[in-house]
Amino acid sequence: MSKKYVYLFREGNKDMRELLGGKGANLAEMTNAGMPVPKGFTVTTEACTQYYEDGRKINDDIQAEILKNLAILEEENGKRFGDPENPLLVSVRSGARASMPGMMDTILNLGINDTVAEGLVKLTNNPRFVYDSYRRFIQMFSDVVMELPKRNFEDIIDQVKEQKGVQLDSELETEDMQSLVSQFKAFYLERMGEEFPQDPKIQLMEAVRAVFRSWDNPRAQVYRAMNDIPADWGTAVNVQTMVFGNWGDDSGTGVAFTRNPTTGEKELYGDFLMNAQGEDVVAGIRRTSDISELKKVNPAVYEQFVDIATRLENHYRDMQDMEFTIERGQLYMLQTRNGKRTPGAALKIAVDLVKEGMISEQEALLMLEPNSLDAVLHDNFTKEALASATPIATGVPASPGAGCGAVYFTAEDCEAHSAEMPVLLVRQETSTEDIVGMQVSQGILTARGGRASHAAVVARGMGRSCVAGVASLIVDEEAKVATLAGQEIHEGDFISIDGSTGNVYLGKLATEEATISGDFATIMEWADKYRQMDVRANADNPHDAGVALNFGAQGVGLTRTEHMFFAEDRIPAVREMIVATTVEQRKKALAKILPMQRGDFEGIFKAMKGLPVTIRLLDPPLHEFLPQEDEDIAALAQEMGMTFTDLKNVVISLQEVNPMMGLRGCRLPIQYPEIAEMQTQAIIEAALNVYKETGMKVIPEIMVPLVASKSELTYVKGLIAGVADPLIAAAGVDLPYEVGTMIELPRAALAADRIAEEAEFFCFGTNDLTQMTWGFSRDDSGKFLGTYLDRKIIEHDPFQRLDRRGVGRLMKIAVDYGRQVRPNMHIGICGEHGGDPVSIEFCHDIGLSYVSCSPFRVPIARLAAAQAAIKNPRK
Amino acid sequence: MSKKYVYLFREGNKDMRELLGGKGANLAEMTNAGMPVPKGFTVTTEACTQYYEDGRKINDDIQAEILKNLAILEEENGKRFGDPENPLLVSVRSGARASMPGMMDTILNLGINDTVAEGLVKLTNNPRFVYDSYRRFIQMFSDVVMELPKRNFEDIIDQVKEQKGVQLDSELETEDMQSLVSQFKAFYLERMGEEFPQDPKIQLMEAVRAVFRSWDNPRAQVYRAMNDIPADWGTAVNVQTMVFGNWGDDSGTGVAFTRNPTTGEKELYGDFLMNAQGEDVVAGIRRTSDISELKKVNPAVYEQFVDIATRLENHYRDMQDMEFTIERGQLYMLQTRNGKRTPGAALKIAVDLVKEGMISEQEALLMLEPNSLDAVLHDNFTKEALASATPIATGVPASPGAGCGAVYFTAEDCEAHSAEMPVLLVRQETSTEDIVGMQVSQGILTARGGRASHAAVVARGMGRSCVAGVASLIVDEEAKVATLAGQEIHEGDFISIDGSTGNVYLGKLATEEATISGDFATIMEWADKYRQMDVRANADNPHDAGVALNFGAQGVGLTRTEHMFFAEDRIPAVREMIVATTVEQRKKALAKILPMQRGDFEGIFKAMKGLPVTIRLLDPPLHEFLPQEDEDIAALAQEMGMTFTDLKNVVISLQEVNPMMGLRGCRLPIQYPEIAEMQTQAIIEAALNVYKETGMKVIPEIMVPLVASKSELTYVKGLIAGVADPLIAAAGVDLPYEVGTMIELPRAALAADRIAEEAEFFCFGTNDLTQMTWGFSRDDSGKFLGTYLDRKIIEHDPFQRLDRRGVGRLMKIAVDYGRQVRPNMHIGICGEHGGDPVSIEFCHDIGLSYVSCSPFRVPIARLAAAQAAIKNPRK
Repeated sequence: MSKKYVYLFREGNKDMRELLGGKGANLAEMTNAGMPVPKGFTVTTEACTQYYEDGRKINDDIQAEILKNLAILEEENGKRFGDPENPLLVSVRSGARASMPGMMDTILNLGINDTVAEGLVKLTNNPRFVYDSYRRFIQMFSDVVMELPKRNFEDIIDQVKEQKGVQLDSELETEDMQSLVSQFKAFYLERMGEEFPQDPKIQLMEAVRAVFRSWDNPRAQVYRAMNDIPADWGTAVNVQTMVFGNWGDDSGTGVAFTRNPTTGEKELYGDFLMNAQGEDVVAGIRRTSDISELKKVNPAVYEQFVDIATRLENHYRDMQDMEFTIERGQLYMLQTRNGKRTPGAALKIAVDLVKEGMISEQEALLMLEPNSLDAVLHDNFTKEALASATPIATGVPASPGAGCGAVYFTAEDCEAHSAEMPVLLVRQETSTEDIVGMQVSQGILTARGGRASHAAVVARGMGRSCVAGVASLIVDEEAKVATLAGQEIHEGDFISIDGSTGNVYLGKLATEEATISGDFATIMEWADKYRQMDVRANADNPHDAGVALNFGAQGVGLTRTEHMFFAEDRIPAVREMIVATTVEQRKKALAKILPMQRGDFEGIFKAMKGLPVTIRLLDPPLHEFLPQEDEDIAALAQEMGMTFTDLKNVVISLQEVNPMMGLRGCRLPIQYPEIAEMQTQAIIEAALNVYKETGMKVIPEIMVPLVASKSELTYVKGLIAGVADPLIAAAGVDLPYEVGTMIELPRAALAADRIAEEAEFFCFGTNDLTQMTWGFSRDDSGKFLGTYLDRKIIEHDPFQRLDRRGVGRLMKIAVDYGRQVRPNMHIGICGEHGGDPVSIEFCHDIGLSYVSCSPFRVPIARLAAAQAAIKNPRK
Repeated sequence: MSKKYVYLFREGNKDMRELLGGKGANLAEMTNAGMPVPKGFTVTTEACTQYYEDGRKINDDIQAEILKNLAILEEENGKRFGDPENPLLVSVRSGARASMPGMMDTILNLGINDTVAEGLVKLTNNPRFVYDSYRRFIQMFSDVVMELPKRNFEDIIDQVKEQKGVQLDSELETEDMQSLVSQFKAFYLERMGEEFPQDPKIQLMEAVRAVFRSWDNPRAQVYRAMNDIPADWGTAVNVQTMVFGNWGDDSGTGVAFTRNPTTGEKELYGDFLMNAQGEDVVAGIRRTSDISELKKVNPAVYEQFVDIATRLENHYRDMQDMEFTIERGQLYMLQTRNGKRTPGAALKIAVDLVKEGMISEQEALLMLEPNSLDAVLHDNFTKEALASATPIATGVPASPGAGCGAVYFTAEDCEAHSAEMPVLLVRQETSTEDIVGMQVSQGILTARGGRASHAAVVARGMGRSCVAGVASLIVDEEAKVATLAGQEIHEGDFISIDGSTGNVYLGKLATEEATISGDFATIMEWADKYRQMDVRANADNPHDAGVALNFGAQGVGLTRTEHMFFAEDRIPAVREMIVATTVEQRKKALAKILPMQRGDFEGIFKAMKGLPVTIRLLDPPLHEFLPQEDEDIAALAQEMGMTFTDLKNVVISLQEVNPMMGLRGCRLPIQYPEIAEMQTQAIIEAALNVYKETGMKVIPEIMVPLVASKSELTYVKGLIAGVADPLIAAAGVDLPYEVGTMIELPRAALAADRIAEEAEFFCFGTNDLTQMTWGFSRDDSGKFLGTYLDRKIIEHDPFQRLDRRGVGRLMKIAVDYGRQVRPNMHIGICGEHGGDPVSIEFCHDIGLSYVSCSPFRVPIARLAAAQAAIKNPRK
């Protein structure tokens, strides 16, 4: 028996996705659920594969089968291809197993020709609509089926508009549409050497062929290559009867949701319009009616629709967004899909569906988009404020939430004025010295940088809104003035920035506070119930640690000690340490820093209430702590009582060609053991003090950065033990502590078996690991990553989403090697990726013990970890 | 039955290495071969392990067994421990399975005490020798067995010398030695609280204990950790009868080789001295006699020695270096080992041994140290010249061979004078602009840099000698004067540099030409017969390609096109291209470079006579081609007809924080396709021209650098094909070409399966791969790699010797992934490691198709590849 290449909708079901494609299987499912779906059939993916096997020809068998099913369609509809009395028009759509951009999408109104058009005019009494549809069909068919340039048709339209002296398509009248049809047909004849096909069957067969062909076009090829979709999957083609809501006054069209997409309330929500087509509802030219009005207009149809809506929601077990058309009193469902909703509504709907017994807790968790929680966690501008305001500029939405305040151009000025009024830090770009200013600001606006810039990373960590890389912003810090999109902004002027959209507004916009409703708490409770990874936070000070704890962090996964070194009261001692030429001088300077560091750690330990805290030893190259410009060097030299030349020489000696791969990380304590020794002393003394004071026993986890080999860790661990063990012994307290390492160099991952012999824990620093694995400097790759994304050479910025094939493979190697040696080793991640849901899923899959992210992303990570565990539970 | 813990030498053999250690097994072997070896026994490695199991105690069983064997030794020697009439003295030596630094080495003269000393004075009539031996024994025993600081004993010696008013130990007389013995014993009593042990059995047991203990000392631990030697292997202890060449006039001592170590001639070669100890021969204070004289002095002993020498050579099947002692007319062999020899002699001996039927060709190849061929391949200073000259300074021996010429301080000046006389380039440091100057020089001397510096890498590539990093050299390029170790050097002054030792001499030293004898050719022929990897060379110009071919290269594995861009006639066009602001401008500039590039490639193709040539597309960041200092920018701006500001802006826009990870490699053609297109055109046209002219069909291998993902290669391959295919079609020649990629980023290795879908070949760029894997910037890591080597954190500079655990694991991953997809893919290496024998062995083991190295290392690589194949042949 020969293969079956065409299935009527009623012959399929949702499990036949491979054969019918996603769209076809879904249409079949709805049909079989008894929904009034316009009838149609699906040409299978196997027909597509056969088309390629036959040398890009639709063979006679398949053509015959299509025509046979067309005949059934005509029969069942009582409409006929090319019949002016009652013409059958169809839509033709592609539909692969997975939705795939780049392929042909849709041809509507297939079946129109000159006589059908005339017939339709009589039937609908709407000649403008008919000829508009006809000219659109010719245009679409010529473009996607025959590959005639779209531009040519638009040129013709432009000429007609010019002759008529109008601007908009909607100003064209019936005669103009008729004229366009004639001109389009003439153009087609001229370019193709034959008449525009009047036979609907030829139109149909050509359209099917075009869908098959589009499976292999360059954009689709690139997409397939990137997503590992085999070429032999092929695409299906869906042929469906057209219905018309503008047939007359007993016809209409509408869209509706089964629940309120803004609030999540359970109520039918939507609009409709009689004697209209879908476009009219969307275009907003005519005033639509609330869906409840339909009850008056056509009670039977309304009842039927309410019934269908309920059934659809029950069937898909989620809030549905539906399109329907009423053709001559008859209801047709054109589409149903899970409806988009606001983040708040999403929470409510998910929780309600569980309460209603419609879905399980796990399903509720899987419904939510973790990143959407961001909006719930930050203050936002009110809808009203946004509706009435116009952005003056737009930048990169670098850290979500609303920020509104008086502009200041330096961190110091922000600090100075933050007590009087809300302030907003505006800078060309930020650096580590601006941290305190950022902390007191409502938001940060910068002219340079993107999502990975310093401002963005720090702002997200603090939960401050940030818009970065605003090209039209020029900041003159000295003159205390900025130009934004050509407009001068002075110190103290108010502006508003929306870190969720990147928009910047002049003046004050009203904000509304984040409301963390009970649903949010419920969802988090469920998430914690199902997830198998811990979630920690990156926190460099007691305040952030407190925020993190409130958001449910189970510990601190990363404390960056260098941020503490920049504070105004410390930087002199830090610089003294750096310019020291003897061990004694260095120790003297470090002794000044010691009590402050100890205080920092005490604060964090207390804030975390006994939960584990991972502290990373000093990481950045020392030159970051020194000024680079001659002027600043001169000033500092005077301050430090050094000659300019001596200080300049220190600065020069610390300069590096590639500082990212220079003297930093564990290379610092190997060169200058005193720094790590001081830090260890501060950590251990802090833990002992907190224990004495509160009775809480903190387990400090001391993390050594940038380790590439076991020997490095052996050496630094020796330094740490040399300080820590005597302190603990002297205190007579049984205080355990751990020494572990960042895995942030490819070699650390590759030698993880050896390193695990020393390391008590691993933590992936995927920012650096991504840099080294790709050879992409974060500071420089902005120059070309844009081109890479544009040309589809990479699909995602690897600094935002973990690159599974490269960095991920290294992580897998490290986890496997590490656990070979130390089976119960705790292994985490503390790079930016620790807050990205897709990356978190990967971390779950390879067996990490925890992810650590900025405090404001903790709830997102909790949800993402739960989703990962539900999808792929660990034994 | 209980374990046997002690073996007499005659009870062992060479296969008992695990139990007896390397030294013990070897002594046993010689004993059983009938050589007159002083008798002794070995305490086994199992006794050591037992010592640790028993909590660092030598248990009674083992002690009893040692004493039992001591009794046998006394019996067989007719000497007795502590017997003043005929005392037995022994040496005690450690001996693990593998030689292991850090462990206790040797205690001599064990068995001396006060009465034995008196007896020995009577027996030898040499009281000074006796008390010198005694005081040495106390010193050695106190130091290594009792861990009394060596320094304290030296202080006592210094006091005695001061009192006596002499400078040297050798000026001390018998009474002084006796006084030292008394003082040492007194000091021992004071510090240890007990007398220096007079009982030789106690001395012996303590010495054995000390050897066992030293197995676990910190230095040995580090060494074991680094070399994966398990702690439970343990060390053996060898106890051997002392013999004395200074017993009287019928005693003596000497050293001899079975062949001449300088020439390799087959003749007994060595010296001896009657009534003397080994030290006296080595110290060179007394005049030694040629070994042949021994025939007259004691014909019987001479005959016996000749016979033994022959038997030893036959036994070990290699030239032997032997130590012997004659005690009262009796010959004793103290040591034999494979003798050190000059590189020339090594070649001759290896070839001769094969001719004599003593070893196979494979064994001959394995005998040679590939790196030693370097000396044979370069001109060197004559022995006489070196003997009479004193170096004025010493730097890093960066590229071997002798260099002698008139000093010039710029590449231009070198070029200008190289026709008149030999020149030598002396610079603070070199840069890519100096290439031509280096080419015409006899050698290069720099103040900065090491083996990995630009000067070193390029010099090795060209076969020029180079001494780098001479700290006492300061070059004032503008004043055309340098200071070297305080002495002024002017333009035109002659100096001589020895790139093999790093020594620098004033004036001209005589050189001798490298003589590549017939033995060298024979060895190369054998190497080619057994090796399974091809050897290619890195060559950027026709001259280097020619040299490489002469040295046996089977193709060019790397042509770096950027070096061609720096030539004086090209750099203006290159700069024009870089500052171009439109595609048209850029293409215009590239059009000027095209004919020159084409000419380069034609030259290389012709030189290589049809062998494969791999050409790498432009790799470095563009800023390398532009000046960086304002002054130079201004000059160039004027030259180019630009404003200073415009050019400065271009320079700034190209600056990068980490240029190594910035816009370079394949990122360049993705940003600016025109460069790769021009290079492709030059390559293909050159291949076509050479074909038309000579009929040789070159297969150009176009190599795309710095690829991290398949998509990048897909994109660049598309550009290449877009240019190459039409050119080839138009020429009507069936010219195949290949497009492959460097594997020089960790991600490329990790994604090699995907990349292999596009890449027709892989070539490891292990310089960059090492940088990225370790996160070590080559430009900056000098600052801390020294500390790393000093503290034994790394054993080898990973840029010199391939890091197997990290970089090597990545390479293995890439080879396996690549061949999964493309089973016969050719895969090579073209980093510096391609010329390092140890790294070459690894390349063989993981299945590489070829290594590519600088032309002068081609013979070394051929030999190393053969050795690897012999050790571990591929199926």
